[in-house]
Amino acid sequence: MKTVAVSKAHGGVQSVHAHDSEVCACEMRFALYLPPQAALGSVPLLWYLSGLTCTHQNVMDKGEYRRAATEYGIAIVCPDTSPRGAHVPDEPDNWQFGQGAGFYLDATQEPYARHYNMQRYVLEELPAVLRNARLPLDFTCQGIFGHSMGGHGALTLALKNPGRFHSVSAFAPIVHPSVADWSRPAFAKYLGTKESAWRRYDAVSLIEDGARLPELLVDQGTVDPFLEKGLQPWRLEGACRGAGLPLTLNMRAGYDHSYHFISSFMAEHVAWHAARLLA
Amino acid sequence: MKTVAVSKAHGGVQSVHAHDSEVCACEMRFALYLPPQAALGSVPLLWYLSGLTCTHQNVMDKGEYRRAATEYGIAIVCPDTSPRGAHVPDEPDNWQFGQGAGFYLDATQEPYARHYNMQRYVLEELPAVLRNARLPLDFTCQGIFGHSMGGHGALTLALKNPGRFHSVSAFAPIVHPSVADWSRPAFAKYLGTKESAWRRYDAVSLIEDGARLPELLVDQGTVDPFLEKGLQPWRLEGACRGAGLPLTLNMRAGYDHSYHFISSFMAEHVAWHAARLLA
Repeated sequence: MKTVAVSKAHGGVQSVHAHDSEVCACEMRFALYLPPQAALGSVPLLWYLSGLTCTHQNVMDKGEYRRAATEYGIAIVCPDTSPRGAHVPDEPDNWQFGQGAGFYLDATQEPYARHYNMQRYVLEELPAVLRNARLPLDFTCQGIFGHSMGGHGALTLALKNPGRFHSVSAFAPIVHPSVADWSRPAFAKYLGTKESAWRRYDAVSLIEDGARLPELLVDQGTVDPFLEKGLQPWRLEGACRGAGLPLTLNMRAGYDHSYHFISSFMAEHVAWHAARLLA
Repeated sequence: MKTVAVSKAHGGVQSVHAHDSEVCACEMRFALYLPPQAALGSVPLLWYLSGLTCTHQNVMDKGEYRRAATEYGIAIVCPDTSPRGAHVPDEPDNWQFGQGAGFYLDATQEPYARHYNMQRYVLEELPAVLRNARLPLDFTCQGIFGHSMGGHGALTLALKNPGRFHSVSAFAPIVHPSVADWSRPAFAKYLGTKESAWRRYDAVSLIEDGARLPELLVDQGTVDPFLEKGLQPWRLEGACRGAGLPLTLNMRAGYDHSYHFISSFMAEHVAWHAARLLA
C-alpha cells in the first residue's frame, strides 16, 4: 500500500492510497479518513460505496463526511467502484457498465471475470490491506453505506454477511437491479443471462429469499431523475414490509440524485451509524 | 443571466449561472447558494473569491460552506477567477498567469486590458447582474472572503472600498503580491513594470498607504508549501500592527493549502461573518 495523497482535515487525516489488487488484477485506489480520535486508539470503520461513474474521489471531494466523522470519532473508507486500467475490459461510452460500474459483484463471465470482482475486493482484499497496514481501525465495529449503485452495494453486502456490518444505510440506492433497465444489461454481461444467478446481487431478491438486517435507513430525493424507473424505493419498502425488516425511508422533498443531496444528509447518516457503532 | 445548474442542498438552493460579461468580454460563470431563509426575505450576501487555477466550481464542490450558510441564513456567491475562452489571451502552461489567475485587478497592459478586469467584474458587473435578477439578496449587508489569490482579492477589494463589505476574512491569502516571486511576473504583465501602480492591488501596500478595515480574520496552515516564500502572513501581521488594524491570525498546525484546509475552517469563517452581518 502506497500513499498517494495526505492532508489534515477537520482535525483528522484524509488520505488516498494505491495498492496492487490480486482480486481485480489491477492497481486500485481508495480514500481513507481517520478522525483525530484514531491517535488515541482504534476507531469504528464505516464503509462508503460510491455510485456509477464515480471513483474513490467524488465522495471525498463532495460528500462532506469529515465533519461528522470527527464529531463521532469514526473512520470512513471509500473504495473505487470498479477495476481500472487500459488492460481492463470496458465499454468507454457506456456509463452503466465496465469501469466505474462494477456493481459490487463477482463476475462469472468472460472477459470480465478476471477483473470485475468488487464484492471480494470490498469484503476481503481491501480489509486485508487495511489490516496489514496496522491502522487504528476496530474491525469488530464496522458499518456500511453508499449511494445509488453504492447503496445497492451496501445493502447487498450487508444482507449477505449478517453480523459483519453493525449498521447499514443508503442514499438513493438501486434496490432491485435485476428488474431495472439500467442494470439488467450489466448483470447479463457480468453474470450471464440466467437470472436466478442475479438474485444474490439484488437487495429486494435477497430479502425475498430470506436475508435479513436488524434495521435499515434510506434517504431518497423526490426529484431524483432516476426515481421512477431506476431506483423505485417502494420495491424495497414492500420487501421490508413483507419480511418485517424495519426500514426508515426518508423521502426528501426537492432533492435530486447529486452530491448536493448526499452531502445534505451525510451528517444524519453518520450520526445514525455512530449511534449503532458506538452503542 | 441563464441558469446552468440548480440543486437543492442543505435546505437551500445551490445554482450555477452564466452571463455575457462586458467587463471581461466573454461569458462568465458563477455559483450562488441561497439558504432556506431567502424564501422569506432578503439575506446577507457573502462573496467568496477563489485561488489560482480555480473556477467558480472548486469551492462549490469542496468548500463545505452550505451547512453553515443555512445555519446562519447567508447567501454565498462564488465568481470565477478570470475571464475565460479561446479568444482570451492566456499562457496555458503557466498556472500563475492568464486564465485561472486574474488576481482581482483591472489590467492596463495589452493584450490583457480588454478581458482581465476582475476587479470591476466583482465590484460592479456581477453585483449588477445579481440585482437585475431580483434575487432575495440584501446588498446593504455584504461580506467578503477568499483563499490564496482569492484572499488577496478579498483583502484588497475590501481595503479599497471602505463601508461596502461589513466583514472580511481570508484563508492563506497572498498578502504582498508585489514582492512575491509567484505574483510579480503576473503583475508586470497585467499592470506594467512601474511598481507604484501595483500598490493598490497589494494588501500590505494598501495598509501602508493608509487603507483600513475595522478588523480582519485570517487562517493559515503551518505546513502550507507556499507559506515561507509566497504567502508570508507575517508581512500582513506587521502592516496591521503598524496601522493598529485588529488582525486575528490563526496559525493552524498541520494544515496545508488545499480545500481540506479551507473546508476544515469554513464553518468558523461563515460564523465570523454571520456575527458581523447579522449584528
